[in-house]
Amino acid sequence: MHLNSSMEINEKGHLTISGCDTVELKKQYGTPLYVIDENTVRSNCKKFKTAMDKYFDNGRVMYASKALNNKAILKIVTSEGLGVDVVSGGELYTALQAGISPDKIELHGNSKTEEEIIMAVENQIYCIIADGFDELDLIEKVCQRLNKKINVTIRIRPNIDIHAHEAIQTAKMDCKFGFGLFDGQAFEAVKIINKSNFMALHGVHCHIGSQIFDEQPFEELANHIVDFACDIKNNLNILLDEFNFGGGFGVWYTDEDSPKDFEVFIKLINKTVIDLCNKNNYPMPIVSIEPGRSIIGEAGTTLYNVNGLKEIKDVRTYCMSDGGMFENIRTALYGAKYTAYCASKMNEKHNKLVSIAGKCCESGDMITWDTPMPESLQVNDTIAVLTTGAYNYSMANNYNRNPVPAMVLVKNGESHIIAKRQTYEYIALNDVIPDYLK
Amino acid sequence: MHLNSSMEINEKGHLTISGCDTVELKKQYGTPLYVIDENTVRSNCKKFKTAMDKYFDNGRVMYASKALNNKAILKIVTSEGLGVDVVSGGELYTALQAGISPDKIELHGNSKTEEEIIMAVENQIYCIIADGFDELDLIEKVCQRLNKKINVTIRIRPNIDIHAHEAIQTAKMDCKFGFGLFDGQAFEAVKIINKSNFMALHGVHCHIGSQIFDEQPFEELANHIVDFACDIKNNLNILLDEFNFGGGFGVWYTDEDSPKDFEVFIKLINKTVIDLCNKNNYPMPIVSIEPGRSIIGEAGTTLYNVNGLKEIKDVRTYCMSDGGMFENIRTALYGAKYTAYCASKMNEKHNKLVSIAGKCCESGDMITWDTPMPESLQVNDTIAVLTTGAYNYSMANNYNRNPVPAMVLVKNGESHIIAKRQTYEYIALNDVIPDYLK
Repeated sequence: MHLNSSMEINEKGHLTISGCDTVELKKQYGTPLYVIDENTVRSNCKKFKTAMDKYFDNGRVMYASKALNNKAILKIVTSEGLGVDVVSGGELYTALQAGISPDKIELHGNSKTEEEIIMAVENQIYCIIADGFDELDLIEKVCQRLNKKINVTIRIRPNIDIHAHEAIQTAKMDCKFGFGLFDGQAFEAVKIINKSNFMALHGVHCHIGSQIFDEQPFEELANHIVDFACDIKNNLNILLDEFNFGGGFGVWYTDEDSPKDFEVFIKLINKTVIDLCNKNNYPMPIVSIEPGRSIIGEAGTTLYNVNGLKEIKDVRTYCMSDGGMFENIRTALYGAKYTAYCASKMNEKHNKLVSIAGKCCESGDMITWDTPMPESLQVNDTIAVLTTGAYNYSMANNYNRNPVPAMVLVKNGESHIIAKRQTYEYIALNDVIPDYLK
Repeated sequence: MHLNSSMEINEKGHLTISGCDTVELKKQYGTPLYVIDENTVRSNCKKFKTAMDKYFDNGRVMYASKALNNKAILKIVTSEGLGVDVVSGGELYTALQAGISPDKIELHGNSKTEEEIIMAVENQIYCIIADGFDELDLIEKVCQRLNKKINVTIRIRPNIDIHAHEAIQTAKMDCKFGFGLFDGQAFEAVKIINKSNFMALHGVHCHIGSQIFDEQPFEELANHIVDFACDIKNNLNILLDEFNFGGGFGVWYTDEDSPKDFEVFIKLINKTVIDLCNKNNYPMPIVSIEPGRSIIGEAGTTLYNVNGLKEIKDVRTYCMSDGGMFENIRTALYGAKYTAYCASKMNEKHNKLVSIAGKCCESGDMITWDTPMPESLQVNDTIAVLTTGAYNYSMANNYNRNPVPAMVLVKNGESHIIAKRQTYEYIALNDVIPDYLK
């Protein structure tokens, strides 16, 4: 039985997270319930920060907040010295509302709107990571109108295959992100920025994908990044201030995953970049990474109530949870796999295969398939699904008009709401009946 | 060029929907924008209502509101004489708030919560479609406590394969829905309801899946339903009041789809049920259907702005829209296909293949692949994606903290907001920073 950090089993046989009894959390807050363990978030932040400080004089860790963008989480990661990577106006708004200093925020996105660029420029955030030529035009126009300058980093698209789900590969040739590296587009973009009076050429960025367990692609990426920087230096006599390697560091969901110590990635990036910079006489810039899932994934657990069991003889047993694709769409969307336990019966042998269904009216609405559970599993038991901190709450929706669950932060036996449970009133708040239909 | 009903091209070469210029709608309401054509909704309702009235003395059409549950839409379909099928407390809440009479509402769901059953019983809705034994227990307990009776219909699970995407097959043996027909569970459920003082046995229901183009599975279903009813009559001397055939009638998304006139399905159901009832001397009950997508699908169109174009030589051209999986997740989730046009240049030849990307930070966030668009497609053009009325708004989410778009109802040149665009404030409203983190 693999328990994530801060998890224990108490004298009642209940799963606890940072000293909080999950069965008690269910009683107090209801289910489904997202539980985030603050100590794990902090220790993950520290791991990255410490490793970056160890290997680089000028390392920077930006939390990829799309994994879980929430005011309290942003407070925690920034208090650990991380910056924040946002990918939309909504994420930028949240970060600013949480009181995060704009100079700690960078803006990503393959299709930024004018309004988002205005927000970024007006607030003078750390930098915009530019993704296309039309976007450079827009940034130029907005800056001119507002008479403000902004740092711009170029997102490049080399052709790196990380052998993962197509949907989470982000640096292949056929991909919507970034400027092509080998067709000269990235270099062209640098020239445009260099000529501008409003855009300050800042750095180069690439994000190669998600759930990466093998560090080698980062060596390949480091080569591309330094080559590109040297090209710019040699041809335009410009030095870049920052090399940004993105994120994608794999985490544990099930025993099929073998995540490496994050330091392994950073060490390899360090070695490759330093070697290449030395060889090319290139002054070491800021080196940055953007972990998201690897900060927040294992810190999250989702609790469910068992609403019912359905045994289909010789086929399978379905366990009806009160969750589903409205609060965890990853199973339906990517065929994601999770580890789950009966949190109210942790000491009982988990040896009966059960498939945990969601409550949405769709056969594909499943949370796990064939998960071992106790023989005695019954209505009103509590189920815990592990490693749900990333891309669960952030992808939550109101399918079937189900309310998005509450999220609580736990720490050393105490719990605090960090996202209130949606109400039916909240969901229907934007519905309008025109007068003539009343 | 296939245009959905109410669509035309005006003198400016713009796409119009029920007399509203889509380029003007974009200016007035912004994008992304869901546009629902009221006349199409009404004519689809009428098609089903007329056919049911033609073939059955006691036919009933229940709108499967999970396709698009919104107060104004519920007002429209009920004004056409349809009832409303809801699948959660949130959908029931919305229907009640819209002023729909509870005796026009039925409640579905494979994992109903106690709170949802309480809502249904307290409001004395038309019936609960029961899905499992644990649910029957719960209904009994709730009714006992509230001292109220409720109609209960049994959802059965025969083993019908409609040869569609696994996720939308809902009557196969290995499926979370309903009581098994062939293992005797459905019959067992009938006996339990029959013994109860609080549950009134009402009918039998089965929903075989979605996007069905072939009417034959409904003949198979009719056989199962009448057989089951006869079994109950012969063994328990009970007559059922209602046979509910669910929905799943296929609609047009692209020219790969060949939807049939809905009447074909109803005619076949009618012929089979009448033959079998006559043969078995079974008095004709209410016969009902639950169309959702087939009412609302083709009535919906989504408008986008072109934020940018990215040509990857010898690979493809990406068109960056301001939408994506936060407002249309069906492409990422099911590999759904859509037809799209450049709404601002309808008279130009659409002969350049373009893939329409969403703005979410994920390679899989695409709206269409390889869609013909005009050679002159450029930034700030308007794109229209057709047949987005069903399962687009209803599955919308705040991934990347993007706001769910507004929805407008158009009719004969007029437009009215029926769902307000979410604001950043609304999205972050439930975020809480505990005091000790401030």
